[in-house]
Amino acid sequence: MEPRWLTPDEQRTWRAYRDLSLVLEDALDQQLRHEADLSHLNYSVLVFLSEAPEQRLRMTDLAEQLKIARTRLSYTVSRMQERGWVRRVDAPGDGRVQLAVLTDEGLSALERAAPGHVATVRAAVFDRLTPEQASAFGEACEILLAGLTGPGRPASSSGLPWRR
Amino acid sequence: MEPRWLTPDEQRTWRAYRDLSLVLEDALDQQLRHEADLSHLNYSVLVFLSEAPEQRLRMTDLAEQLKIARTRLSYTVSRMQERGWVRRVDAPGDGRVQLAVLTDEGLSALERAAPGHVATVRAAVFDRLTPEQASAFGEACEILLAGLTGPGRPASSSGLPWRR
Repeated sequence: MEPRWLTPDEQRTWRAYRDLSLVLEDALDQQLRHEADLSHLNYSVLVFLSEAPEQRLRMTDLAEQLKIARTRLSYTVSRMQERGWVRRVDAPGDGRVQLAVLTDEGLSALERAAPGHVATVRAAVFDRLTPEQASAFGEACEILLAGLTGPGRPASSSGLPWRR
Repeated sequence: MEPRWLTPDEQRTWRAYRDLSLVLEDALDQQLRHEADLSHLNYSVLVFLSEAPEQRLRMTDLAEQLKIARTRLSYTVSRMQERGWVRRVDAPGDGRVQLAVLTDEGLSALERAAPGHVATVRAAVFDRLTPEQASAFGEACEILLAGLTGPGRPASSSGLPWRR
């Protein structure tokens, strides 16, 4: 059966999304590396820990929030531990469960990095879209995200990264 | 000066975009790896070469089309050369310029991989949005991409990846 190739309009939308996702991630990562000496992934780890009760999360939950594979998180957290930004501790009462805990140094690093990061997101995204465009963009992203992570996700998606 | 933090609506849009970009890239990469034995980046290299005149591109132009840094492209093309999918040749008359050339094996690999990849994109994106939603999504992506790559891009963006 002939595949249902993308139409020219779909192709254009798809390439714009694909290119945007690469260029925007690069811009965010570069800004954080140059101005705050941390990667975008490091920054996201600090954000999610800072928002969690007692500023700690199970590694498996942190991987799910970050949308990355556990092996990648484990590697990242080890590097961040060396920098003094997080600690890894056993969960009370269950040594098989590991928690990542934000340190005071990690919180300071986040507080130093946040203004520049938010300014970059604002300049790259929200200063460039009307509220209506931003709302339509967000709505489409939410629909697509739900499709990929919800119960009816495509059979060809071979498992979510944080479950691997 | 207090940073202009994101509003709750902006925060929600931003997190949906951020999560989508990670989960969708993972789904596309996993599908290609499992069903066609190549990465999403490998696939994109094959696509851009197949569309180029004489199925060849200067490495610098290929990096720009891919939206990645030249060092990353160089590494990727070396691996793809080992698999027999591309060749690297000097540009006629200018040995300082390198071209990547699609091989017959590369074209076959692309033709084998394309139907499954397109089906995944369709299932993940275009089957889930109305034409109006897809159009608004594409429009927003084009505006943001132009902002990041065009002449008026934010000063804090520290150079485009393919220029590094």
